[in-house]
Amino acid sequence: MQLPRGIYGITDTSYTVKSHVNAARVFLEGGVRIIQYRRKEGSIKVLLEEAKAIRRLCNEYGAVLIIDDRVDIAILSDADGVHAGLDDAPVDEIRRRFGGLIIGASASTVDEALQGERAGANYIGAGSVFPSPTRPDYRITGLDGLRNIVRSVNIPVYAIGGITLESIPVIKAMGAWGAAVISGILAAKDPVKMAKAFVEAWENV
Amino acid sequence: MQLPRGIYGITDTSYTVKSHVNAARVFLEGGVRIIQYRRKEGSIKVLLEEAKAIRRLCNEYGAVLIIDDRVDIAILSDADGVHAGLDDAPVDEIRRRFGGLIIGASASTVDEALQGERAGANYIGAGSVFPSPTRPDYRITGLDGLRNIVRSVNIPVYAIGGITLESIPVIKAMGAWGAAVISGILAAKDPVKMAKAFVEAWENV
Ligand code: NI
Repeated sequence: MQLPRGIYGITDTSYTVKSHVNAARVFLEGGVRIIQYRRKEGSIKVLLEEAKAIRRLCNEYGAVLIIDDRVDIAILSDADGVHAGLDDAPVDEIRRRFGGLIIGASASTVDEALQGERAGANYIGAGSVFPSPTRPDYRITGLDGLRNIVRSVNIPVYAIGGITLESIPVIKAMGAWGAAVISGILAAKDPVKMAKAFVEAWENV
Repeated sequence: MQLPRGIYGITDTSYTVKSHVNAARVFLEGGVRIIQYRRKEGSIKVLLEEAKAIRRLCNEYGAVLIIDDRVDIAILSDADGVHAGLDDAPVDEIRRRFGGLIIGASASTVDEALQGERAGANYIGAGSVFPSPTRPDYRITGLDGLRNIVRSVNIPVYAIGGITLESIPVIKAMGAWGAAVISGILAAKDPVKMAKAFVEAWENV
């Protein structure tokens, strides 16, 4: 499966949109075609129900669904893949046991990106490119760091961290496959309109 | 695989033993041959590392390892199975996607036990038999309820909830395959000695 280029939406309920399912809907209505369901708390039952609801939505829109962290939820909800952060299960072990999944790896350095690629990741989430309200603890790669990561690996790189509408052109110019957006869309007054603006900004550069 | 009869140890760090790995070691040194690793909090990375450490211990002792809740951790750690509580992923979905695992289901009524069996569970954890300090919110089945569950299903039933050394004979007399013990062993002054006492109590009835 070819990973969609452009905006990669990550669900979050800290902003205007108050449920993960609605966050996914906002992204999809705005034209985003790869969604990550990221929820850290809650029982497996709740996680699985939400993941299935988001799976159905993604199917309607022909979008790719990635689950943060939880391979079990990914498989039980028929998601396309899983994102393994640096504190999550090792990419190579996931690859060995769950070969069919798309696996994303996080990286804030070229070394981490190369490690993720060697371990079998299908894409890299690289960042934080800018200081990010959702990930204040993340190392900042800056645009140079992003470009170095893009040049060092042969798999798609989604830029992540503090990405605004205004930064889309320069992110694309660095060679990123796409840009992961959370608060940039979900904290907007009109999140669907903002999602559309991001998608268009990427397409029209 | 034949499920071991007798004492079923569940890890918990609320008592005398302060780590899950040590709790597993206590059970194993005491002669327990089926261990459930149950940890609700912590990153996947930590869960996976502990699960692997407990897997190695269980291999040394020839014991069965069950992971509470987390199919992903179970598979990535090479555990034998997963225990799916009533708030966890549905047993039939786990069975369909992860056929090779031993799956345990929880039940506090005959209906729930039959449902678990039909869904493909390999064993039932039935309880709470007695009021339990670790599960104050659980419905109490009593000894009658335990016996009714044992009679209604064709799969092994481990009694759980408030089981003490003194209650082992009557639990066995109700037809249970075994008894799940947490605080009864892990809150003891000498937990290994207590584990041995439980194992012997079961064997010598
Ligand atoms: Ni994560």
